[in-house]
Amino acid sequence: MNFASDNVYGVSAQVMDALRESNEGPSGTYGGDAHTKRAETMIDDVFETGVSTFLVTTGTAANALSLAAITPSYRAVLCHHEAHVHVDECGSIEFQTGGSKVLVLEGDDAKIDIPALERTFGEVGQRMPHQIGAASLSLTQASEFGTVYSLDEIAAICDLAHAYGLKVHMDGARFANALVALGCTAAEMTWKAGVDVLSFGATKNGAMALDAALFFDAVDAESFPFRRLRSGQLWSKGRFLGAQMCGYLENGLWLDNARQANAMAAKLSEGLVEIGGVRLSCPCQANEMFPVLPRAMHERLQASGAVYYEWPGAGPKGPGLVGGDEVLARLITSFEATDEQVGAFLALARDAAQ
Amino acid sequence: MNFASDNVYGVSAQVMDALRESNEGPSGTYGGDAHTKRAETMIDDVFETGVSTFLVTTGTAANALSLAAITPSYRAVLCHHEAHVHVDECGSIEFQTGGSKVLVLEGDDAKIDIPALERTFGEVGQRMPHQIGAASLSLTQASEFGTVYSLDEIAAICDLAHAYGLKVHMDGARFANALVALGCTAAEMTWKAGVDVLSFGATKNGAMALDAALFFDAVDAESFPFRRLRSGQLWSKGRFLGAQMCGYLENGLWLDNARQANAMAAKLSEGLVEIGGVRLSCPCQANEMFPVLPRAMHERLQASGAVYYEWPGAGPKGPGLVGGDEVLARLITSFEATDEQVGAFLALARDAAQ
Amino acid sequence: MNFASDNVYGVSAQVMDALRESNEGPSGTYGGDAHTKRAETMIDDVFETGVSTFLVTTGTAANALSLAAITPSYRAVLCHHEAHVHVDECGSIEFQTGGSKVLVLEGDDAKIDIPALERTFGEVGQRMPHQIGAASLSLTQASEFGTVYSLDEIAAICDLAHAYGLKVHMDGARFANALVALGCTAAEMTWKAGVDVLSFGATKNGAMALDAALFFDAVDAESFPFRRLRSGQLWSKGRFLGAQMCGYLENGLWLDNARQANAMAAKLSEGLVEIGGVRLSCPCQANEMFPVLPRAMHERLQASGAVYYEWPGAGPKGPGLVGGDEVLARLITSFEATDEQVGAFLALARDAAQ
Amino acid sequence: MNFASDNVYGVSAQVMDALRESNEGPSGTYGGDAHTKRAETMIDDVFETGVSTFLVTTGTAANALSLAAITPSYRAVLCHHEAHVHVDECGSIEFQTGGSKVLVLEGDDAKIDIPALERTFGEVGQRMPHQIGAASLSLTQASEFGTVYSLDEIAAICDLAHAYGLKVHMDGARFANALVALGCTAAEMTWKAGVDVLSFGATKNGAMALDAALFFDAVDAESFPFRRLRSGQLWSKGRFLGAQMCGYLENGLWLDNARQANAMAAKLSEGLVEIGGVRLSCPCQANEMFPVLPRAMHERLQASGAVYYEWPGAGPKGPGLVGGDEVLARLITSFEATDEQVGAFLALARDAAQ
Repeated sequence: MNFASDNVYGVSAQVMDALRESNEGPSGTYGGDAHTKRAETMIDDVFETGVSTFLVTTGTAANALSLAAITPSYRAVLCHHEAHVHVDECGSIEFQTGGSKVLVLEGDDAKIDIPALERTFGEVGQRMPHQIGAASLSLTQASEFGTVYSLDEIAAICDLAHAYGLKVHMDGARFANALVALGCTAAEMTWKAGVDVLSFGATKNGAMALDAALFFDAVDAESFPFRRLRSGQLWSKGRFLGAQMCGYLENGLWLDNARQANAMAAKLSEGLVEIGGVRLSCPCQANEMFPVLPRAMHERLQASGAVYYEWPGAGPKGPGLVGGDEVLARLITSFEATDEQVGAFLALARDAAQ
Repeated sequence: MNFASDNVYGVSAQVMDALRESNEGPSGTYGGDAHTKRAETMIDDVFETGVSTFLVTTGTAANALSLAAITPSYRAVLCHHEAHVHVDECGSIEFQTGGSKVLVLEGDDAKIDIPALERTFGEVGQRMPHQIGAASLSLTQASEFGTVYSLDEIAAICDLAHAYGLKVHMDGARFANALVALGCTAAEMTWKAGVDVLSFGATKNGAMALDAALFFDAVDAESFPFRRLRSGQLWSKGRFLGAQMCGYLENGLWLDNARQANAMAAKLSEGLVEIGGVRLSCPCQANEMFPVLPRAMHERLQASGAVYYEWPGAGPKGPGLVGGDEVLARLITSFEATDEQVGAFLALARDAAQ
Repeated sequence: MNFASDNVYGVSAQVMDALRESNEGPSGTYGGDAHTKRAETMIDDVFETGVSTFLVTTGTAANALSLAAITPSYRAVLCHHEAHVHVDECGSIEFQTGGSKVLVLEGDDAKIDIPALERTFGEVGQRMPHQIGAASLSLTQASEFGTVYSLDEIAAICDLAHAYGLKVHMDGARFANALVALGCTAAEMTWKAGVDVLSFGATKNGAMALDAALFFDAVDAESFPFRRLRSGQLWSKGRFLGAQMCGYLENGLWLDNARQANAMAAKLSEGLVEIGGVRLSCPCQANEMFPVLPRAMHERLQASGAVYYEWPGAGPKGPGLVGGDEVLARLITSFEATDEQVGAFLALARDAAQ
Repeated sequence: MNFASDNVYGVSAQVMDALRESNEGPSGTYGGDAHTKRAETMIDDVFETGVSTFLVTTGTAANALSLAAITPSYRAVLCHHEAHVHVDECGSIEFQTGGSKVLVLEGDDAKIDIPALERTFGEVGQRMPHQIGAASLSLTQASEFGTVYSLDEIAAICDLAHAYGLKVHMDGARFANALVALGCTAAEMTWKAGVDVLSFGATKNGAMALDAALFFDAVDAESFPFRRLRSGQLWSKGRFLGAQMCGYLENGLWLDNARQANAMAAKLSEGLVEIGGVRLSCPCQANEMFPVLPRAMHERLQASGAVYYEWPGAGPKGPGLVGGDEVLARLITSFEATDEQVGAFLALARDAAQ
């Protein structure tokens, strides 16, 4: 019963098989290999357009290198104050861009508040009150609190950003989870809604170390190859990035994995709120949930070996929510989560609630 | 009646004379001249200690180079969300440090709220929820809204910062105005209260282009000479920085200038609040004020040639304060402000209030 | 017969098995997993000391992050003018350090000339004629031309560097090949000779995507964790870096792989020079060789499917060497090179020489 | 008799007067003042075209900010290995660009060798053997050794650079000295020959702290205002930069100053070579000379109070030139140099030669 994160679990068997199968004889290097080429074609198919695809190792690399490609060093990136790029990446944007400012936006449930964004642009335009112009906006889908922007919301944010000359980046560390939650196509959730660049995360959803920066306009990608090389993200044995991506996409594995994770999250969150004294601090829309648990229940769960985080930050609804006898928890279900694990967790929780 | 800023006025005659007098024959270069040496000695005297003094051109340079000297590129600077270093310098901290994060603190009247700072450190310590540790804290004295930290407040902030391993920087763009407001010594307002590095601003108070980075511990200054050179802040004809500083400090000119500016601000702000419909949105403690004016009064003032800013931001008390028929204004008095100018402005305002 | 590079070949079976075996159930993340811990212990054993080990993805990352850890942004890195860090990494040092200068040293066969280095330091000390001080020196073992520094040479360079206050970094992209060439221990070739930081390359010698930054003094490593995270080099599923390293070191695989590569290089180079008209432009001491081939031979080899590079640069002995009817070639043998491949290549070459 | 540098002397009286005259009443700030506007117009007149002019404090700032404006962080700057931007500015290019490489070119007398440059481009094109593309080339006029490129040489270098997609920057720290040496117009020596950006130095030739970045194509200047602000180069009291420039250009002061400096250099160098045992190591074409002096003469000169540098580097003709009983010296004449000083120096030297 480990719900600490989706990255505590390993690699889908199909991805591991793809790695092993690609390990034959000599091949092209630095991305000039057949597996990478095939991965690029598969990406084009998934997104129904010609994509400038760059395979890198981590979500942090995909995010910060993408943002650096569309944000001059003397301009700013806008993102939600809970955004992973702002909160969890040790200043990777400031670093990769060469010193851009990161300016934060407000909004409930880790989603950018659209009327507030509109007011901000209305007052100051692209020019933030920092003697600096915003060049890009990053939104996270699914968000840091496991909520999901609707297609209309994405389009509204993109329209606003574009109206003021900003490019839009989507941090898709949990892209697949959001996609199956919305039940739309990858194209609809990205370029058709106005997204310019996507960090297409695979690591959390069954790959080993693979996130891709996908540019829907090749012009925006011009500097990416140089940035990738100099930041140490260009694998000499590039076939093993390509093979991961092929294994991840083949036969819809990525969607199946996300569906399993989301289904288990739904079951777990629904089961939890049926227990007296438990409530969700924001909707569970993908594979994350932030329940408020009675402290006694939390302690018994942890003592019984259930693994998840007591959330250190304010969380979705702010500090007022959690009193001394309550705990804000974060649980994430991975593609390997099972009915048995969820059932066992809920049984423990029910016991603890007695 | 130009109260737009203290930098719309020029240079004190004594500073101009010092420049002219220093312009004789050959001299040492790059700071190796007699005027710079004398300026360093005068600084030591003013601050009653051995100071590592570096003369630079602008407040932005003094601030960002100082902060870069005490903040590794992979760590963070804390400052108030209204701080000039955050709001007005186009990302100079992020640039000069090589990509540090700037994390903002709350507080009324552009002053850091000490209990809130204490809570923040209590919860997360030096390690901000950004996978990054804070290395420094910058406070502005006088603040961006013209308020002044008391010695106790400075000491409390420094104590807190030091307890968590942070160095403290003071942005003293209007250092002299704060100093005469408190009526204490320069030593008391800085190193005796715990300040590690000071941007000692002279430009706004009668110099031409002169701010000094003063390190009270020489160890912190180790990288400064290199940073100053590479950022183009090392004057070859360094005597003209040294001479400015000598002219600025000689016979207490700097304090006289600040006293005049503050006295005019006091007179102006007191005169304004005696007029019906005018109130200050925060106390006028140095040489800046943010009055709320009836819009009709504002329009008549401007039409009559009074120069000052309608403040674009939320200002001291937040957006709620200013309705459609009111204007938040910012007025700054310089060392050249006169009784006549203040009297003329007040007469106009009184007329406009009829 | 692909001798284009050692990275055109894949992953040793033992490494692939280790990856698969580590793919079970949940585990710690971001390096807090059992495989990474075990890898760290194995490194300590191999180097006979307590090492601060950081596993990253590529040699470029290991090199530039290591150098950034020991080189302030306002100082310089010294390296040979043929060094990979200078020639092949798109400015990664300048980038990761935040703007250090890279200053180049001379020497035959891609090895730093020690008397020349001594003269340089003797004239200018640590302070290069660039108003900047050198903080570090990087040497490559085995070198970019496949030559190997002796232990005495390494010690002499380290002693010189240390005498002038510089730290020494070794780029060990082909560390194992050099080690088996010298027949010494890993400790002898590094910290016992004075090396402070090592990029311990595994990718070229049988791993998938794995280079480690090894610090022999933990103090030097202080900033590394932050730099690794912000540059996107921290794998969430860190077990797959740890497992690669375990598989690589287990039962001396890494040494066996290097011995095989070197043996094949020796056989190939020796066979080549027995052919009329072929000579080596520098000694083949590890698994690389730079033979000069008659152009006709070169063309027949390539036409027959032999894969290797016609070297675009001046190569080991300078431009004078290669006339219009000669070609400077670079051949590298990998751990997968076989007697059959080498024999077939030599047979082709002999044929072509007729 | 101080010939150490042109910057050991102060400010032309006309510049000092302009500063004093501009010090009246309020004025626009941050470059929005009448003096700056007038300076911009005067620059346009001097260069016979519409120039995007940015006044900054130092040559290092003008150089590095200009190069940063035309060189992406992941590309390279080409310059002569003796270039001030490479040798004397503590890595300012690497810093201001955010990590560009600086790659050096060869050539006698501190001038880029054009056939060698042509060969380099012919072999590798814009793409240097550093996995990085060159984006710009910087040449220094007059050069670091006081030599002067002819108009044809400048045009040839610009044509080559442009053919490979590079922008050309001219470091004109001693622009006026070169201009009067060639006897051409400022337009002919810059944009008409193909120069894209000029660092127009005034400090060494009679200003206080003033260099201007002049862009002949406004598009190249797009990022400059942001870079200038964030690097602390934007004077709040901008009138004092504008006034310096007006005073510098008014009535051809700048050309008169340069003519005086050059004339004194000609007289001094011609006088020196008439003395037995003295020779120039490269031609004296502007206001610098590098004579080789008998050591005994050198010692008597210095003992008599003559001030100039014994040159620490290899100098124009390489290390072979200077034996143990000879000294390579550098002498620079400023706009304040007089016939009397030159005569006195020559008399001393003649005495010492007896």
